[in-house]
Amino acid sequence: MISVAEATRLIAATIRPLGVEYLSLSLAAGRVLREDLRADRDFPPFNRVAMDGIVVRFAALEAGQTEFLVERTQFAGQPPEPLQNPLAAVEIMTGAALPEGADTSIRYEDLTFRTDEATGRRHAQVQVLPPRAGHNIHARAADRHQGDLLLPAGTALGPTELAVAATIGAATVAVTRRPRVAVVSTGDELVPISATPLPHQIRRSNGLMLQAAADTAGAVTALFHFNDDVAALQQGLPTLLEEYDAVVLSGGVSKGKADFLPETLRGLGVEQRFHEVQQRPGKPFWFGQHPAGAVVFALPGNPVSSFVNFYRYVQPWLLAVQQPAAVPGPVPAVLAADVAFRPALTHFLLVRLEDAPDGRRLAHPERAGGSGDQASLLMSNAFLELPAEQEHFPAGTVLPAWRFR
Amino acid sequence: MISVAEATRLIAATIRPLGVEYLSLSLAAGRVLREDLRADRDFPPFNRVAMDGIVVRFAALEAGQTEFLVERTQFAGQPPEPLQNPLAAVEIMTGAALPEGADTSIRYEDLTFRTDEATGRRHAQVQVLPPRAGHNIHARAADRHQGDLLLPAGTALGPTELAVAATIGAATVAVTRRPRVAVVSTGDELVPISATPLPHQIRRSNGLMLQAAADTAGAVTALFHFNDDVAALQQGLPTLLEEYDAVVLSGGVSKGKADFLPETLRGLGVEQRFHEVQQRPGKPFWFGQHPAGAVVFALPGNPVSSFVNFYRYVQPWLLAVQQPAAVPGPVPAVLAADVAFRPALTHFLLVRLEDAPDGRRLAHPERAGGSGDQASLLMSNAFLELPAEQEHFPAGTVLPAWRFR
Repeated sequence: MISVAEATRLIAATIRPLGVEYLSLSLAAGRVLREDLRADRDFPPFNRVAMDGIVVRFAALEAGQTEFLVERTQFAGQPPEPLQNPLAAVEIMTGAALPEGADTSIRYEDLTFRTDEATGRRHAQVQVLPPRAGHNIHARAADRHQGDLLLPAGTALGPTELAVAATIGAATVAVTRRPRVAVVSTGDELVPISATPLPHQIRRSNGLMLQAAADTAGAVTALFHFNDDVAALQQGLPTLLEEYDAVVLSGGVSKGKADFLPETLRGLGVEQRFHEVQQRPGKPFWFGQHPAGAVVFALPGNPVSSFVNFYRYVQPWLLAVQQPAAVPGPVPAVLAADVAFRPALTHFLLVRLEDAPDGRRLAHPERAGGSGDQASLLMSNAFLELPAEQEHFPAGTVLPAWRFR
Repeated sequence: MISVAEATRLIAATIRPLGVEYLSLSLAAGRVLREDLRADRDFPPFNRVAMDGIVVRFAALEAGQTEFLVERTQFAGQPPEPLQNPLAAVEIMTGAALPEGADTSIRYEDLTFRTDEATGRRHAQVQVLPPRAGHNIHARAADRHQGDLLLPAGTALGPTELAVAATIGAATVAVTRRPRVAVVSTGDELVPISATPLPHQIRRSNGLMLQAAADTAGAVTALFHFNDDVAALQQGLPTLLEEYDAVVLSGGVSKGKADFLPETLRGLGVEQRFHEVQQRPGKPFWFGQHPAGAVVFALPGNPVSSFVNFYRYVQPWLLAVQQPAAVPGPVPAVLAADVAFRPALTHFLLVRLEDAPDGRRLAHPERAGGSGDQASLLMSNAFLELPAEQEHFPAGTVLPAWRFR
């Protein structure tokens, strides 16, 4: 039996980058970028007017001029033409490029307009003077220079990253392909969801849970079920070991006579890396790797054990093989009540995290219903990792929390 | 110009529940449940053995018996048969139903076995006595009783909720249909992502950003673009107002001469609810509702303005119409540096939230690049909402943070 730290290390040792695929930007949300994306020009690419109003030469204002003939009107998207008369103004809209000769913008709110009855021409009267040259002008290259690294490889592509990629014309991007995960439930006692179970049977639920969780971590998943039948496993598993990056099994790994999965997996060439971890729940966790590359997470069949092992070990692996710059880990949370746990095991304690009004993240321990009580998971949104070498955890202790909701 | 609170109220007043659809459970991840799901039987449905080992009558142990004939072996999923001899044991696996006559489980770790040479029969020898009757038995109905409400309408269906629904046989569930959102960018200065812009042009990026963000909030989205052309808008918008639950526009709502969107929308029968909110960035935000039901969020075209308005107003609306029991709001965060903001406007301050080692959520203000600086969004993961009536916010102040990453 190995420690949680050692199990984590052995799993991390199997992390290899998945391959790259090229996707249209509109399909790349949630993926991890695998190329550096640089500014293809300065940002802003031109001296950009930031307010609707007029633009003038600041020197004219400094010389005391407050009324300006409006030469013309320029909208965003129109090519800029130079200011004809250095003492005149261009009426101009947000997002437009600053005309040559003008250097300062004055917003409508600080202007009035009058139309000269004789000439029919409009004049802007400045009511509030701009404080300096360049006011309300978002200068070319103020944000980024051409060639600046905007999105390094390893960036997770969310809405803002997609927008930045669009701005620099990255219509197609290199991203990590999604990990392929086979979720496999085992057990003779399990019947399909739509079946009516006999009194000693229960419906299959772990598979769906693990599949939904793996989907959320970015995987492409498929769901399988095997009865406790060595021959069926020997026939069915090899294809999964060849076609998937990870096989996540639930059930069949504890000490029971029907728990022949470790032996069956070893017989199929899966090299065992460990079996049993010093933790509760989820101790009988088995982990191995097939020479062809697939890793096998064989989780205990108890719903809470499966679930906790998934978020503690499987999800970080699924995220890491996608090669993000950083894999999100647990977050520090403040224990809201005293907790004692005597066995020399790492204890994963179900808690309800609360965003307290003082800015702290509080962890309220949930009444534990035993590792069979799936419904107790509904009351919690995270589990704390209580180290094995400590028995008493007073309220106020800060501990790592693995969030699952 | 109205306050942020009033804008929030006017938007909330348009929230109506979207219709219900019936989905296979495996397709329902991320949806909101619209029916109550109750336990179809007790959980556990039988007295469930929680350890691999043997089961016996506790009374026999109390009477001093420590060796038990193993009558037979029972696996999970096998129908239980009563204990034949009240002084014997059944070897039994985790998940199996407790045989009638037995009441206590002893795990393998606390047993040795010997085979009687004369009879060839196996006997279990108890090395560590169980503390009480019922030990390691997860009693029928210990977790939930038949008829108990497990998942009320309004539950968001994540991995654990799907597993619970599977357990009670909810193969098909009633959920809210996804909101339909048309994302519309406007502006003559905007060219397609794959085009090479002229110096005064920029590529379309807001649409993609808003689309990805709306997708994440559970919407079904489609992306449109219109130039600053009233006739094109008058022709194209009516279909969108009929076919979508929400139309999210970016650009065309500030005071500029080309910003004819509010007038065009009113002309198409969209009732204006407000225009301009006392906030920075994002002041020119326009909101209205079409008599047929669609709401129109017309956001300013500046990327940061669009983005902040989306997360402050549009996302909560998209979540609320799906009818969850609670719509997630901002979380309290501790300002990590002094901030001053003088205008009498609510200030949405871009920050980087940090999960500090002491369990607090710290908010580090990011260098603001102006509302045109899309790339500044990359450095932050949230914005704080600084109330309009206060100018100075010393470090340590706790403020609501809207997380967007």
